Amino acid sequence: MDMAAKRIVHFTGGRDGEWDVTSIHAVAGATLLHCDRLAVTDTLSESDAIWSLAGAISNLRYTTSAERAGLQAKQSGLGRTEARRAALIPISKSAAWWAMAQDERLAIYARSQHTAIGMDYLPAVARRLHHSRDLEEPFDFLTWFEFAAEDEPQFDHMLVRLRASEEWTYVEREVDIRLTRTH
Amino acid sequence: MDMAAKRIVHFTGGRDGEWDVTSIHAVAGATLLHCDRLAVTDTLSESDAIWSLAGAISNLRYTTSAERAGLQAKQSGLGRTEARRAALIPISKSAAWWAMAQDERLAIYARSQHTAIGMDYLPAVARRLHHSRDLEEPFDFLTWFEFAAEDEPQFDHMLVRLRASEEWTYVEREVDIRLTRTH
Repeated sequence: MDMAAKRIVHFTGGRDGEWDVTSIHAVAGATLLHCDRLAVTDTLSESDAIWSLAGAISNLRYTTSAERAGLQAKQSGLGRTEARRAALIPISKSAAWWAMAQDERLAIYARSQHTAIGMDYLPAVARRLHHSRDLEEPFDFLTWFEFAAEDEPQFDHMLVRLRASEEWTYVEREVDIRLTRTH
Repeated sequence: MDMAAKRIVHFTGGRDGEWDVTSIHAVAGATLLHCDRLAVTDTLSESDAIWSLAGAISNLRYTTSAERAGLQAKQSGLGRTEARRAALIPISKSAAWWAMAQDERLAIYARSQHTAIGMDYLPAVARRLHHSRDLEEPFDFLTWFEFAAEDEPQFDHMLVRLRASEEWTYVEREVDIRLTRTH
């Protein structure tokens, strides 16, 4: 429609795609079915899909300008040749989380040190967040991470810290999908 | 997909729907084509549509818990029998707006007194905001207002104040669609 920007990314589990699925496990709530490959595309292709998730690359919702400056100074982009591992982590938060006003959610986000924890793993772990809740998707967020194989233990350590935070008490469903680049 | 909530509302201009279109005019940027009727539905119906816009009812993005309490104490809901007039105002903001971090956008929103201006017209003007940008729609927001015919001058006054605010310097496209309930 009109000149609306392409901002929705489709993550399709099936038999195609440049990522081999090495594991899928539910951290909270229902899991997703196993599949062999994952495709990351900007248009939806239904062929042979076992599941398909969509999320929009959007504006910052909690990050301040000072935090953004800190992140931009340290972070790496997607597609690094050495980053042959990835993770896709779909998450849904509770109705109680979404019913809160902006200042209430921001306070929990800040107390949970979400940004500060992520900063500790830059530039090793590259990250892109996709917003799904407004798309009537089964998850609220899809976070995509890329890292080198030798940095996967660091990535796991980051997840342990985030999952122990106050913010994560509002996570109702979380699936951890690990991937290896095929070429 | 799964148990995802219905949150997307479709506003379809054509020959059907419970609202007569009394006027459509562009405040900034390109207008929308004239049509006779507007239908507001939770599923998309393409039949005879001249245009169709979609937006998601979502969580609060700037409103604080104190502001929300103030709004909830004064506001009225949609569908009042006396509210036989409505307005649909699709808006798009500039790339500069969306590139700002959360604290930067919030500061402009607060300085512009967006919430305080709206409060002055409660409970006469009922309002519901729909988020469209992440849906790859041509507008970023669709705001729906309902009011009694005798309150339309008040509603117009509210728009004059909002359009004079700092926040509105970031509005690149705005269309003002006025409606009358047909039954």
